[in-house]
Amino acid sequence: MAVTTLRRLRLRTAVRSLCPHSTFSSPTTDRLLSIRPHRPFLSPSLGQCAFYSRRLHPRSDRDKVSSPTIPERLPFSKITQEDLAFFRKILPGRTITDPDVLEANNVDWLKSVRGFSEVLLRPQTTEEVSQILRYCHSRNLAVNPQGGNTGLVGGSVPVYDELILSTALMNNVLSFDSVSGILTCQAGCILENLSLYLEERDYIMPLDLGAKGSCHIGGNVATNAGGLRLLRYGSLRGTVLGLEVVLADGRVLECLASLRKDNTGYDLKQLFIGSEGTLGVITAVSILCPRKPKVVNVAFLGCETFEQLLQTFQLCRGMLGEILSAFEFLDSECMRLLNTYLKLPNPITDSPFYIVIETAGSNLTHDEEKLHTFLEEAMTSSLITDGTVATEDTKIKALWSMRERVTEALTHDGFTYKYDISLPVEQIYQLVTDMREHLRGKAKSVVGYGHVGDGNLHLNITSSAKDPTLLAAIEPFVYEWTAGCQGSISAEHGLGLKKRNYIYYSKPRQAVELMGNIKAMLDPKGILNPYKTLPDNLN
Amino acid sequence: MAVTTLRRLRLRTAVRSLCPHSTFSSPTTDRLLSIRPHRPFLSPSLGQCAFYSRRLHPRSDRDKVSSPTIPERLPFSKITQEDLAFFRKILPGRTITDPDVLEANNVDWLKSVRGFSEVLLRPQTTEEVSQILRYCHSRNLAVNPQGGNTGLVGGSVPVYDELILSTALMNNVLSFDSVSGILTCQAGCILENLSLYLEERDYIMPLDLGAKGSCHIGGNVATNAGGLRLLRYGSLRGTVLGLEVVLADGRVLECLASLRKDNTGYDLKQLFIGSEGTLGVITAVSILCPRKPKVVNVAFLGCETFEQLLQTFQLCRGMLGEILSAFEFLDSECMRLLNTYLKLPNPITDSPFYIVIETAGSNLTHDEEKLHTFLEEAMTSSLITDGTVATEDTKIKALWSMRERVTEALTHDGFTYKYDISLPVEQIYQLVTDMREHLRGKAKSVVGYGHVGDGNLHLNITSSAKDPTLLAAIEPFVYEWTAGCQGSISAEHGLGLKKRNYIYYSKPRQAVELMGNIKAMLDPKGILNPYKTLPDNLN
Repeated sequence: MAVTTLRRLRLRTAVRSLCPHSTFSSPTTDRLLSIRPHRPFLSPSLGQCAFYSRRLHPRSDRDKVSSPTIPERLPFSKITQEDLAFFRKILPGRTITDPDVLEANNVDWLKSVRGFSEVLLRPQTTEEVSQILRYCHSRNLAVNPQGGNTGLVGGSVPVYDELILSTALMNNVLSFDSVSGILTCQAGCILENLSLYLEERDYIMPLDLGAKGSCHIGGNVATNAGGLRLLRYGSLRGTVLGLEVVLADGRVLECLASLRKDNTGYDLKQLFIGSEGTLGVITAVSILCPRKPKVVNVAFLGCETFEQLLQTFQLCRGMLGEILSAFEFLDSECMRLLNTYLKLPNPITDSPFYIVIETAGSNLTHDEEKLHTFLEEAMTSSLITDGTVATEDTKIKALWSMRERVTEALTHDGFTYKYDISLPVEQIYQLVTDMREHLRGKAKSVVGYGHVGDGNLHLNITSSAKDPTLLAAIEPFVYEWTAGCQGSISAEHGLGLKKRNYIYYSKPRQAVELMGNIKAMLDPKGILNPYKTLPDNLN
Repeated sequence: MAVTTLRRLRLRTAVRSLCPHSTFSSPTTDRLLSIRPHRPFLSPSLGQCAFYSRRLHPRSDRDKVSSPTIPERLPFSKITQEDLAFFRKILPGRTITDPDVLEANNVDWLKSVRGFSEVLLRPQTTEEVSQILRYCHSRNLAVNPQGGNTGLVGGSVPVYDELILSTALMNNVLSFDSVSGILTCQAGCILENLSLYLEERDYIMPLDLGAKGSCHIGGNVATNAGGLRLLRYGSLRGTVLGLEVVLADGRVLECLASLRKDNTGYDLKQLFIGSEGTLGVITAVSILCPRKPKVVNVAFLGCETFEQLLQTFQLCRGMLGEILSAFEFLDSECMRLLNTYLKLPNPITDSPFYIVIETAGSNLTHDEEKLHTFLEEAMTSSLITDGTVATEDTKIKALWSMRERVTEALTHDGFTYKYDISLPVEQIYQLVTDMREHLRGKAKSVVGYGHVGDGNLHLNITSSAKDPTLLAAIEPFVYEWTAGCQGSISAEHGLGLKKRNYIYYSKPRQAVELMGNIKAMLDPKGILNPYKTLPDNLN
């Protein structure tokens, strides 16, 4: 009883500090690191780099299954000295063959897959991308388009000797209209740089994710990235207004409209959003950006049960309404990893579950009053047991880092088996509970975190090293469990190399066949990002 | 001066009535009709029904031009007695051949185009749609899928003797999840019925449009309808989560996921959104619905100039922020038509421009305070000259009808040439001004209204009867003007039959060719809604 009272008092203090016009200062958030989480990239230890292979045990009612292993190399041409001479001519100084430089482009951020490309091309213009692809198409050379290489499913690195076509030097903002909020930029702009550019102009990007410091907007669009703001601003399918894409044969598809509405024919750009570079190379993006909110508050709360967390979500949607911009969660296992590996202290009392709520609005008094009333109600109803609130930028960032840096903490815990699952929101944590029970101590850690508002669970399982026995216990269990709830086996990460053969758990045979037809229509030689997204035995 | 002072006082009274917890009553809105606008459907006078033909004068830099006239009938089979026997067997009592019944399905709502179909099919299930299309595909019979037949570009009626496949009897809600707000329903559900269904459950549809009393959700999705809430809830490309579609050969594509996020392969449903029934027949829709706002306010304001209207929009976006749910406009010519034909009195003093602003939020006091502060500021800055505010449902509907019923008023003014243009918001009214100047009295009325928040102008030009000389003066002027500003010649209406050959004004040749490839892939015999969306000379 005493502890509960203490917790409540603590929360009440935080809540009280939200009263309009009061100055907020939280000793708990002061203790947190306020620096932007940097991804500790990679001087890859090749001993650790290995293909991430899995055995697929499809459910008996699945139509087709695919080879679980890395596919055979397809009969693309090998790069010759003549090819290099051509590339050096059109990209002088930007045709890289130094193996040391190439290493970072051959290995993914998780160090879970690696390719063996010997050529990295760094075009600066759409015309250069067009020339590259026209040439590769005529020569039957395979190409791996690469943005910030922050993908988690092995989609952003080559598998064999595909040429790497990096968008890193295509990083110019092309235009920004401060009346409409429409930004047009090259594909290689880093998300965080775009955010900073926009914030100076009183706008924000409609998406935000942990990898923002490295990921490219072109890659975000190619993978239909979700992230932390989807709850509020919707998916890229609504906010991306136009794309410029270079097709496999070098033709440039110019659909870079900067109009909110355009119903003249089929919306071709949608084909390329989320196609992971397998249908074309995105070279420029036009995107609708929301106004920068005048007021942002972040609350970090503790819950005893996931049921209470869901009730808090329902209450929150009703009471915060239009100012709710994120509702994220992590479990106590995530907190343990943050404490252990990143030395991030828990800003509140230990709890089984933690919630990160962000509000973004236009009126300080109104927003704080809404948040205050909501927190009072959540506390009175015993839905939350402890909490702290931040209104100041560095403190907000510190609280957010408790959610954003879980991925990073996991990399220190061991080899990580990552699952990005979409489920009806009521069921998202049951999968973690069932998985723990199912594995019965076989794993080092089994953690769950993610986007409650979007019904998106990140289930991560670690072991001290790669462990085929553990993997066999996880899969197909995780996929069958998900398919049993009509969930998606990839909510936002895509399929890439690692998950390509599991597509049938979430999509019917007819749909996958049609995807194959689209691939054949747009890239008949299959040179664009081969071995990715679509299952092996499709054609 | 006296008039200005009076107007200000009047507005101030309206504004004052918004003070928190006050009871609002406006004599001006009381005078308005509060009934839902019904579309006066159609006992079509065939003398007035005629193909809407146009001459295309493409700009010299356009790649391709098309025949301006109604295309030749393509070599589809003619319906035989055996065909009818088959349809009667699978759709007993729902295979209609009575010409009187068929008349309403052959003629569009504007009475601007008519077809000559002799068979109307009214399936109830997806399986029946599949059987119909499988049969039509094997027999090479053309099919016109039809929802509520409220389209404005001749896309919803047959051109020759295509079978009409109506979704009217496919009107069941399949499921609704009150936690996630995800609705799944058959394609023939009428939008307004869905809205009523959801409102009882504390949710709303993410789209709303004037034709809501007749239009079907399947047709809304097939045409990527925009409407009045797009500013707030985004386009259907973001809110539609899943579709069930029957392909041209009868195969059923089941992508009816009800998940907020799913990145497993290409997002096939996007192909069908906005393809106007030319790629498949949508049979069911899964859509994400927002919570019903607790508080809705509508302001009807007058402005002296369009420049001031735009300044009001900018001010409004900043000050109303997250509660702004619509910013619409009409000009004084629209008001004249509403007064004249529908006897709707102007609720405020006559002005050159009128704005309809809707706010939707979760807190009465906060919302009214935001609106109050905004209106005070707009008035103090002399951006608006008069205004009234409604907070009560019937009064809100009455104010909205001033915007929603302009289309209906136009039908009484004469033969209407309709243009649905997307432009950078600063330029949307310049087109109306330039058109008036260009036509110099040749037209009966030249009016502009639309969705300022989306940069979407509805330009309408009437004459007492069809007038080829007037048409020749309007086109290609309107298209060239639009293309000159990188606008879209169809923001939300689609291309249908009427605008199909003007696609090159908004899309490059490469893009249109690719659309043709997609059509050929999904509907190789071209039986689905022929003569629509894509230009004549594509293949």
